[in-house]
Formats: sequence, structure tokens, C-alpha cells
Amino acid sequence: MDAAALWQRYQDWLYYHEGLGFYLDVSRMRFDNDFVEAMQPKFEKAFKDMDALEAGAIANPDENRMVGHYWLRNPDLAPTAALKQEIVETLEQIEAFTAKVHSGEIHPPGAPKFTDILSIGIGGSALGPQFVASALAPSFPPLAIHFIDNSDPAGIDRVLTHLKDRLSSTLVLVISKSGGTPEPRNGMIEVKKAYADHNLEFAQNAVAITGKDSNLDKMAKSEGWLTTFPMEDWVGGRTSEMSAVGLLPAALQGIDIRDMLAGAKEMDAATRTHQLKENPAALLALSWYFAGNGRGEKDMVVLPYKDSLLLFSRYLQQLVMESLGKEKDLDGNTVYQGIAVYGNKGSTDQHAYVQQLREGVPNFFLTFIEVLEDRQGSSVEVEPGVTSGDYLSGLLQGTRKALYENQRNSITVTIPQVNPRYVGALIALYERAVGFYGVLVNVNAYHQPGVEAGKKAAAAILDLQKRVMQVLQEENAPLSLAQVAQKAGASEEIEAIYKLLRHLHANQRGVVLDGHVGEPSTLKVSVQR
Amino acid sequence: MDAAALWQRYQDWLYYHEGLGFYLDVSRMRFDNDFVEAMQPKFEKAFKDMDALEAGAIANPDENRMVGHYWLRNPDLAPTAALKQEIVETLEQIEAFTAKVHSGEIHPPGAPKFTDILSIGIGGSALGPQFVASALAPSFPPLAIHFIDNSDPAGIDRVLTHLKDRLSSTLVLVISKSGGTPEPRNGMIEVKKAYADHNLEFAQNAVAITGKDSNLDKMAKSEGWLTTFPMEDWVGGRTSEMSAVGLLPAALQGIDIRDMLAGAKEMDAATRTHQLKENPAALLALSWYFAGNGRGEKDMVVLPYKDSLLLFSRYLQQLVMESLGKEKDLDGNTVYQGIAVYGNKGSTDQHAYVQQLREGVPNFFLTFIEVLEDRQGSSVEVEPGVTSGDYLSGLLQGTRKALYENQRNSITVTIPQVNPRYVGALIALYERAVGFYGVLVNVNAYHQPGVEAGKKAAAAILDLQKRVMQVLQEENAPLSLAQVAQKAGASEEIEAIYKLLRHLHANQRGVVLDGHVGEPSTLKVSVQR
Repeated sequence: MDAAALWQRYQDWLYYHEGLGFYLDVSRMRFDNDFVEAMQPKFEKAFKDMDALEAGAIANPDENRMVGHYWLRNPDLAPTAALKQEIVETLEQIEAFTAKVHSGEIHPPGAPKFTDILSIGIGGSALGPQFVASALAPSFPPLAIHFIDNSDPAGIDRVLTHLKDRLSSTLVLVISKSGGTPEPRNGMIEVKKAYADHNLEFAQNAVAITGKDSNLDKMAKSEGWLTTFPMEDWVGGRTSEMSAVGLLPAALQGIDIRDMLAGAKEMDAATRTHQLKENPAALLALSWYFAGNGRGEKDMVVLPYKDSLLLFSRYLQQLVMESLGKEKDLDGNTVYQGIAVYGNKGSTDQHAYVQQLREGVPNFFLTFIEVLEDRQGSSVEVEPGVTSGDYLSGLLQGTRKALYENQRNSITVTIPQVNPRYVGALIALYERAVGFYGVLVNVNAYHQPGVEAGKKAAAAILDLQKRVMQVLQEENAPLSLAQVAQKAGASEEIEAIYKLLRHLHANQRGVVLDGHVGEPSTLKVSVQR
Repeated sequence: MDAAALWQRYQDWLYYHEGLGFYLDVSRMRFDNDFVEAMQPKFEKAFKDMDALEAGAIANPDENRMVGHYWLRNPDLAPTAALKQEIVETLEQIEAFTAKVHSGEIHPPGAPKFTDILSIGIGGSALGPQFVASALAPSFPPLAIHFIDNSDPAGIDRVLTHLKDRLSSTLVLVISKSGGTPEPRNGMIEVKKAYADHNLEFAQNAVAITGKDSNLDKMAKSEGWLTTFPMEDWVGGRTSEMSAVGLLPAALQGIDIRDMLAGAKEMDAATRTHQLKENPAALLALSWYFAGNGRGEKDMVVLPYKDSLLLFSRYLQQLVMESLGKEKDLDGNTVYQGIAVYGNKGSTDQHAYVQQLREGVPNFFLTFIEVLEDRQGSSVEVEPGVTSGDYLSGLLQGTRKALYENQRNSITVTIPQVNPRYVGALIALYERAVGFYGVLVNVNAYHQPGVEAGKKAAAAILDLQKRVMQVLQEENAPLSLAQVAQKAGASEEIEAIYKLLRHLHANQRGVVLDGHVGEPSTLKVSVQR
């Protein structure tokens, strides 16, 4: 394609949203008009299904649930008055609670104000809040946020050590729909212990965000926690940033959550049109489908050219891969769907793996995210007439061009600046694009059966550990691994037993290993008495 | 394969290094003995080439350079006495300088001690130090480190705002081999301006790590910076963690760099054997080759089950992709090589994209990194007989098992704990594995031509910007984009001009756009006068 034709293609496909100052450029995805036409019927279904979803249809059939995250930013859309009221009231409660925390009306037992937030949650309960904190939190927020998003003891200790003397003025958010997910449950128990060790009252510092009448909800109420906020069953974890899960920590950090909701609402409205070329989320889904033949054959590399958007790719990794990465389609066919997502930030990554993107395996397409505003205020010149921001902009343009010329396709998203409204819009854009793509490839984009399976697999190992320890406690003589396995009724699990014993041994949990630890067949196992 | 055969395979292939307490398990890569035998000749060449490289051969032919990062941890291997002396003396200088900074003998003009480090560098000058800081820095280090690793004005402002009053006691490290790479150059200029704005003396706070007699070296000397450390031309950026680039910031943070070097040295020794099954780096390279048919057909997903190793995958992304992602092989054939790398940490990612790994597109293999020690000290029970660390361990085992049963292959690396020695060993392991794999697929793993090309493409855009601004300054009447392009002698670059004008306009740089900014053909451009 010559320069004039490419410039025409750019203009033909350029999407611009005036209210949001938002641009989407898909001209560097090499689809042609035949492809777009062939996709029309699929998009007609996608638009219709999305309308039905927004109207309250059961869009998550496996879990028999409505999918309502779009209602959160436009409660008028909620299918019942009760749902609308719930959304509006929760938002008001978040704001009222935040105002009281900021003013000191709600304060910890021994201090005039809360100084820090410790958020305990995993998956959607961590990734959205982490992304929004790193994108939008002011440099000196009213409360600084910290995260426990794993079941790693050393990681928990690191966060607690860092908080040190401020534990007494830390507001702990425990975020878990059921309260039964092991990681946040473990994190909560560890943090409770830290409060007890410091003779601090945990309940007076704690807030739960959880499903109504969940075990966590009941515990919070019976123990007299500060308050609880709801996790609605029609909001999935990976689309919960505009629910209390995301809004409460954002508001506490001084981020304007009404602006975030407003930006998402505007983008939601823009992505409701049934005109493919006028619908930026549909244009994204179209481009993804084209890139990977509707089978995820290319990875999606996401490169925001802005430090504060570093975690956006990690956020999208969950949103895209957990939604689309499915073995079965809605008709029960085995399809192994999904799109792999990774990326950090430009131009930093240009001095890392962009070497491979330019020259190596062509197994990806790129999404550049451009932010027009360099900084607040003016810039020093690093060369005559040139600023650091010009360099960043030039590096983006240069990389996009060179990749295109080397047959690597890309999408470019442009926003005016990084603020709550545009971040809200970005989140809404990708939520909708994922929803459309789910219809295009006919998968349930709103469940996560593999995550449940992972929990079960881990539970089986822990159960095995208990049986093994019981066997060892009942034995007098050291046993070989095979003997342990046999006595534990798990002869097929010798390797798992070897590994869990190695782990217990390394943590002084009373397991004695005689023999050569690198040669499992030589080992004799017993417990300290 | 039944349980007994799989357990036998596990034992047959288990690699254990007694000195390092290090395990490598490749039993869940489904290669067979025929494959291993067929790879033998390739490995014989890899072992020989690696011996030659360590002996000082020109292993980076394009740049006519030796590749000497292995000498850094065993200076006796350096091919000349002068090189050996340079390595030993640099290490001594790092330790002497660090001791003086810690004691306050070297201190900033207005304060008794330095409190913070501001590291300005990109690519290998940032990723290694960032990984090591997040893995190993104590909770309250003698100096806390901050990074400027981009040319993003808002990102630079954020770091400087965060440092606020401590700028006067911040030690600035400028890390750039030539001093000409735009990002660190821009970062340095911005930081110098911040010091000037606060009436602080920059030179008294600054240290350069740079090539001998580079422009940066000369500037540092003429301006009277505190000191300079060398960046040797036989150490590539992505393997520079054990040079001054990585060691100086590590030592300043109180990390034991002698231990890090010792761990790397031990792993280097272990990966010198020509016995494939006894060489853990060769086993990794073998597994990678098997996974992707020697053509990078599968992505490498890296999942350390330990919060402090979160950045290891980002570090490996550069090491692997920049080394292996090459268009041409050493014979000039077009090969589009590489292996895509991504990942964050387990079990956190289990509540994100692991859904896709379990069920979706099977376009990857996994590397689990297990750390045996849960934490320092004992753990609370989260259930009878079960700790948070048992959960983390169980989640790793359960995920590995479920993925394997679903035909997803994996490697498991196990280290006793996260400390300088084992982190040094991990880095050395992957450096060597990448070196071997480079020989297996016959690419130069030590250059990065695409990165150079990226710099040139950006420079062309900045040059265009200057020409465009000159055209506009010389014009009286507003011009269409096509007219600007024609007058700037760049008729094929209308789109690039549109974008750079949009960027300048958004930053109040004197560009006036009349018309509809989302419809480029309607625009008339002029400059403020």
C-alpha cells in the first residue's frame, strides 16, 4: 500500500469520540473490506446479545447469573428498581464512609485519623485497585494503599514490616465474595494475628467487601467491624473495578470516583451503537479476531507509553484471558479459545523485548496506548525545540511504523491525559470489547471454571499432607516415600508426597529426612518426637 | 504414562545441586529419549562454543566484541591479566565507595548522609537493578532506591515529587554506556533541572556508570561528579547485573553482592559440564527447544510462587527475547527466532489468566519457580495443621499437575530461599541457558540490531517535527496537513505530521489547530505568534 493509500485508510478508519477526546486507530491491522463484510453477521449477533445482557438476560448461563457491571455507571439501566437503588445507595455509602474517614470522624482506636489502607484480596479484587492506584493516586494521598494479594508468608511479612508503627492507623479492607477463597482468607488470618501480636483491636480497623450473608459478612458483623460493603453476585471479579471493590479504595485515596464512573458511562454509551465503524469496542474486537483468526493465534502485546499505565497490561491480562480463555464454547464444542496478553510500558520495553517484536517470531499484534499530555506544566528542552515528551511520542510513532513495515500489525489508542474519567473510559472500552469478542467466538466470557478447578487441586494436596502427617505421627520407624504413600492410601502420589515433605522439612515443621534429598529413592522419613 | 512411570521419569530427570540446594525438574516436558539423542550434536557444539566464549572468543561477531559477563564472578577466567585486574578493582571500588556512603564519609553538601538513590537508566540498566531491589532489598535499606527508566515527563515528575525534600540527600546514578541513549540522557537533563530549581548542586550528588571515555564519562569528570564506575564493552546490557550497573545499587541498598557473585559463580561452574543431564542450563535450553520446536512456537510463562520474585519474569523477558528474538541467523538466513516470555507470580495469577492456561489456547509452556522457605520464623495455622505457606505450596503443585494432565508442559525450578546467593545463581542459570539456546538455533544472542533501528526511527520523527515547526514559523497563513507535508519535503508523512502536531497542540507548544481534530482533512495548522 503506498503512502497516499495508507493515509486514506488511516482517515477512513480513524474513530474519534469528541466528548472523551479519545481516538482509536485500527488502520495498521491489515484487514480488508471483504473481511469486515464477512464479520457483519457475527457483529449483529454480538450487538443484540449485548443489548440483552444490559437488559438483564442471564448472560452467564453456567452460573445462572445476570452480568450487570454496566449498570454500575448508569443505574437507570438496571433491570429492576431494587437493583438500581442498591447501586445508588452503595455509592452514597462509599462516599459517606470516605468523607468520615478523611475527616477523622471515623478513626482508629488510638489515633486521630487512618493513614494507610491494607487491601487483602486476589484476582479481580486486587488487579483493578492496583491498576487504578498506580494510574491515579496522588503523590501524597490521604491514605496510602498497600496490597496483600497472595498466600505468600514472606510477602505478607514484607507488607506488615513496611507498615510497622502505622498498623494501628491502617484501615484493613478484606475483599472476598464468599470469604472462602483461601488466599484472602489466609491473608486475613495473618493480619489478624499481627494486630493481636501488637495488642491492637483488629475489628476497629477492618472493613469487609463481600457478598451479602457470606461467611465473611457474618464474621464482620458478629465481630463488630467498622462496616461492610456489598459484592453483588451480578458483578464478576474481573469487571468489579466500578463496584465497591474498586471504588472504595479509590475514593479513600482521594481519586474522583464520580469522574471514573462518568468516563465509563460515556464509553458505554459510545459502544452501544450497532454501527461497527462507529463503535470503538467493536473495532477492537474486530481487530483481535482478524489478528488471531478468531482462535487467538497471535498474542496481544499492550504497550502504554506512560509510566502511570504500567499495570494496565496486567489488568487486561486478567480481563481478556480469564474471560476468553475457555476450553468449551457455548454449544459444548472443544475450542481452546483465548488471547494471550502481556506488556509493560513504552518506550522502556523498547530496550528489552521489542527487539524480538521487531525482528523475531511474528506471533503477536501490538496495542499502543498514547497519552497526549506529557505532564502538567511546561517542559525543559533536552535538545533545541525538543522535549522528553517529544521523544516519547517520537519513539511510539517510530516503533509503530517500523513494526508495520516489518509486517507486524498494531492498534493505537489515544487518550488526552491520565485522569479518572479517561481511565474509567479505558476500562469500559475493554470490558465491552471482551464482551463482543466472547460472542464472536461463542464462549461464556463471564465464568472461570479453571479457577475453581485450581482450588480443588490445591485442596487435594493439602488433604494429602494431612494424611501423610498422620501416617508419620503413628509410625515409629522411618519410612521410605513409597511406604508413606502406601500407608496414606496414595500410592500414585509419591512425587507429591516427596514435594510436600521437602517443603515441610524446609520450614522446620517436624519432618525428618534421612538420606540424600536430591535422590528421593534414598530417603527415609519420620517426624520429630 | 502411568503414575509409576511418571514417578520414575521424575527421578531420572531430577537435577539437584547440593551446594546451592537447587532443584530443576524437566520431567513434565514431554520429550522422549529419541529427541534427546537427536539433540546431542547440537549440544556438543553449544558446549564447545560456550567454552570458547568464556576463553575470550569474539562471540558477538556483529559488534566484534568478546562476551565476558561470566568473568565478572570469576575474574580468574578473564582472558588477560588486565581484564582480571579491571574486574577486581571495580569491585573493590564499589565496596569502598559504598562503605563511605554508608558511613557518611561521602555525603551530600547539605546533609550528613545520603538517604535515597535515584537510578536513571533503561533496559539492562534498569531491569536487573529493579529485579534485585524487589527481590533482595531489606525493608528499611540504608538507601532506598527509585528509578527513572523512561522518557515520560509525568513519570519523571512523579518520582521527583515523591522524593520531595529528600532530593538534597539523594544519590543520583546515571547509567548509560555511551551517554547518548535518549531516555537516560533526557532523564539526566530533567533531574539536573530539578536540582537547579531547588538550588541544589547536582554534581555533588551524582555518579556515572558508563563506558570509559564516553561523553557521559567526560561530562562527569569535567563537572566534578562524585565518581564514575566503568561499563565494560564486553558486558551487554541484559547481562550487566553482576557488573557495576547491578552491583553498585545493590551494595548501596545493603545487599550482599559478594554472596550474589558467589551464587552466580557456583551456578556458572555447574553449567560448564558437557553432560547434558548434569547441566541445568542445558536442560532448560533442551526444554525450550522441545516446547517450541526450536522456533519459539510456544510462549514461556514464568510463575514464581513468591512475591519478592515478581519482577523475575520481566527481567527474563529482556534476557530471553532481546537475546533470541532475531530475524537472521548467523549464516544470514531469515529465521524470525525468539521465545515470547511473560508472567507475574503465583498463586496470584491463578485468579487471573491461569484460567486461559488451564483451558484455553495451548500456545505456551510454564516455568514454576518454587521457594522452599515460606518465611523467616514460624507460621500461624490457617486451618488445623496447615499454614499460608502450605497453601502456596499446594497451589503450585495442584496447578502443575492439572496443567500437565491437560497436556500443558512445565518446568519446575526450586530454590531454598530468596537470598543474594540464590538470586545470583538464578540469574547465572538463565544467562547460560540463553547462551546455549542461541547456539542451538544459531543466532547471535549478544547483539540487538532492532533496538538501534528503533532509535533511528524515533530520530527521524523528531527531525520531521523540527522541519514542520520551521515551515509553520515561516508561514503566515494556516496550512492544511498536506500543504505542511509538501513544504516540509515530506509528502509521504502526512499522518506522522498530523500526530506530532496533535501532540504539540495538546502540550501548548504554540501549535494552533483549526477544524475538527478527529477529521484530519479539515484541519488548518498555524503557530501562535
